[in-house]
Amino acid sequence: MKNLLSMEHLTNDEIIAILDRAAQFEAGEVTTLQRSYHIANLFFEPSTRTKTSFEMAERNLGCTVIPFDAGFSSALKGETMYDTVKTLEMIGLDAVVIRAKEDEYYNELLEGIHVAIINAGDGAGQHPSQSLLDLYTIKKEFGSFEGLTITIAGDISHSRVAKSNAIALERLGASVHYLCPPEWAGNFTAHHNWDDLIEESDVIMLLRVQHERHKVNKDFSKEGYHEQYGLTLAREKQMKDGAIIMHPAPINRGVEIDTTLVECERSRIFEQVQNGVYVRMAIVETLLKGRE
Amino acid sequence: MKNLLSMEHLTNDEIIAILDRAAQFEAGEVTTLQRSYHIANLFFEPSTRTKTSFEMAERNLGCTVIPFDAGFSSALKGETMYDTVKTLEMIGLDAVVIRAKEDEYYNELLEGIHVAIINAGDGAGQHPSQSLLDLYTIKKEFGSFEGLTITIAGDISHSRVAKSNAIALERLGASVHYLCPPEWAGNFTAHHNWDDLIEESDVIMLLRVQHERHKVNKDFSKEGYHEQYGLTLAREKQMKDGAIIMHPAPINRGVEIDTTLVECERSRIFEQVQNGVYVRMAIVETLLKGRE
Amino acid sequence: MKNLLSMEHLTNDEIIAILDRAAQFEAGEVTTLQRSYHIANLFFEPSTRTKTSFEMAERNLGCTVIPFDAGFSSALKGETMYDTVKTLEMIGLDAVVIRAKEDEYYNELLEGIHVAIINAGDGAGQHPSQSLLDLYTIKKEFGSFEGLTITIAGDISHSRVAKSNAIALERLGASVHYLCPPEWAGNFTAHHNWDDLIEESDVIMLLRVQHERHKVNKDFSKEGYHEQYGLTLAREKQMKDGAIIMHPAPINRGVEIDTTLVECERSRIFEQVQNGVYVRMAIVETLLKGRE
Repeated sequence: MKNLLSMEHLTNDEIIAILDRAAQFEAGEVTTLQRSYHIANLFFEPSTRTKTSFEMAERNLGCTVIPFDAGFSSALKGETMYDTVKTLEMIGLDAVVIRAKEDEYYNELLEGIHVAIINAGDGAGQHPSQSLLDLYTIKKEFGSFEGLTITIAGDISHSRVAKSNAIALERLGASVHYLCPPEWAGNFTAHHNWDDLIEESDVIMLLRVQHERHKVNKDFSKEGYHEQYGLTLAREKQMKDGAIIMHPAPINRGVEIDTTLVECERSRIFEQVQNGVYVRMAIVETLLKGRE
Repeated sequence: MKNLLSMEHLTNDEIIAILDRAAQFEAGEVTTLQRSYHIANLFFEPSTRTKTSFEMAERNLGCTVIPFDAGFSSALKGETMYDTVKTLEMIGLDAVVIRAKEDEYYNELLEGIHVAIINAGDGAGQHPSQSLLDLYTIKKEFGSFEGLTITIAGDISHSRVAKSNAIALERLGASVHYLCPPEWAGNFTAHHNWDDLIEESDVIMLLRVQHERHKVNKDFSKEGYHEQYGLTLAREKQMKDGAIIMHPAPINRGVEIDTTLVECERSRIFEQVQNGVYVRMAIVETLLKGRE
Repeated sequence: MKNLLSMEHLTNDEIIAILDRAAQFEAGEVTTLQRSYHIANLFFEPSTRTKTSFEMAERNLGCTVIPFDAGFSSALKGETMYDTVKTLEMIGLDAVVIRAKEDEYYNELLEGIHVAIINAGDGAGQHPSQSLLDLYTIKKEFGSFEGLTITIAGDISHSRVAKSNAIALERLGASVHYLCPPEWAGNFTAHHNWDDLIEESDVIMLLRVQHERHKVNKDFSKEGYHEQYGLTLAREKQMKDGAIIMHPAPINRGVEIDTTLVECERSRIFEQVQNGVYVRMAIVETLLKGRE
């Protein structure tokens, strides 16, 4: 594996290898990388958990992290992504983690670039490290994906997480359902009410309503959304024994989920964050080991 | 001590313990922390000296500092302070230093959060690390606080420094006077001219006129303020032998203080900055040792 | 050498000493600095390659880099450059790298400041580390500067690179020509068409059209500029054997240079970036060694 760009590019074996390596890190194993590598994190969109999680993972692997302030870079002067990344390569970096507004921005990096590229989110495209940490969280809970019923609820058409997870979960044997208002379904065949889903799901994966991408829609009501599509206190009571709640965060409390459920017994929301560091250590180590 | 949020929470003994530890650091002692801890500095308001001072102090203690760009974080997507800090905790941080616009933002962090919180300024509330470095500077100069006359002059009602220092200095035995235009006194009983204060004060602590918080007042004249409330060349000549000048900075030269006095013999303004690193080392070490 | 502010301040011997030291770093030598120094990079204008290059160079020398977010500092509250830098000195920094909008901002730092200052670009003034890496690139190619014909083409009057290089190259024995639209010549005597220059030049150094400094000129056409002043495919064919193409980047592809020439055989554009790290290691080490 040279780069990590999209869940579509990973085989099931590659996915399982990353999850297994993450489990070793969680159990306290240390990296077997032979030297200290140089990495930069290029976040052209705001981020707290993904960026900080990579920063921590990289340091845990003994990497030297070179700061890069995407909001104050030559991209403002119209520099192409290719030229920015090539520049970082020539400066001596081994890998770059990139989040950018453009779908598949990485296509212009496939030729001529030798640093490893980790996609930390491309527009409304993919978010593979989030998907892998979601898979890790589910596997840790249930042991495998075969026969699980998983409902992904929320802003599906804009969600990198939904797209990345849909691909992987179905291929790994889970049955995945989608729930959202009709206008947010995009290419997905979605349910528009909870009906039987709430009682049948092993995993309810809530997605953030991306207010910043819905500026036009003035009819949107947080209360209305919560009542119809959110995880209310009443719905949580209908969930089956052992079923869990996930959310990639940041959370709109009271919209996707009742605020008191964020840290309820079923919730794995903050555990997902913790798992993310181990998974990202596995991702970065895998790509860097491929260069040794 | 689990967190450092407000000078109101510190006993005199806790204050003195921090000042003594800072003095040991200034004398060249090194930390006795048992491992490298992970810290992030979350500055939601601009800062040069406080943030950089913490960055230096943390590295001097052998901490790993995880970068956090508050101006480009998920707070922009409406994430609560609780969720941001809980996320950093799950990522593996041991302590966070926070500056935020909201008074007592930390109240929502008192339950459920296990990282140590250091308040680096909350709105128009408190700024305890600045207060402690001010106390350190005064104690280094005069040996103790008993019987000292201290005048705090300037934008008192908006000043976190004034509030933090008022509490601590009076409790430690100093006599504190306040000087400001009538409309800036807030809850303080303030003098409105220098009269006898200039000759009687051992310490004159000038506060920055916070232009950014006074956008309405178009009548404000820098020259007029300087003449009536600032430390002019003439007033400096009236100060008593051994009296010192302090300012938390950044300075508006020619407003709070005549520009040639910034580095005069009586000024401890840049020495305060130097002392700040030792004091912040003591603060961070104290909180982290409490976790060992 | 205490500071590096302008190419005008360097003797030929000092220039050659830095280039020679850079060559040793490129050959794998390590620094002889006696301890880990503290440095901050203060970039008040956007930058990718200069800032990242210094960040890498500083770490290669074993320095501790203290982050400084210029876009979110007390400079926003009106703090003077002197007070900002003096503050960093008191916090314990040994050197600061500064890019700022004001020409010769460093004049206010010449007295009273003890940290080493490295100018990474002052307004439309100088950019000495870029000039030194350009010189390094040329010397590596041709062995010396004597008798070389060098054409600097583009936005000369606004270019820190042109000014810095003009001084140094002529003094080192090269014959330097300038090419630009008449309104961009500034104080330079410039050619306004390529004529014989294209066939005679050993080095063609293209400058970036600084769109952000030309907001008024609505008549500017990228295609027109490229046709008349840019390096087109046709012109590249006229260049003499062994002649090279340079550009300080970021590049406006299709304006200063045809996009397919950016990585052609003659191009040293990305090699310049690589050379920049060695040259900046030499600069920083030279200044820090002067303090030992």
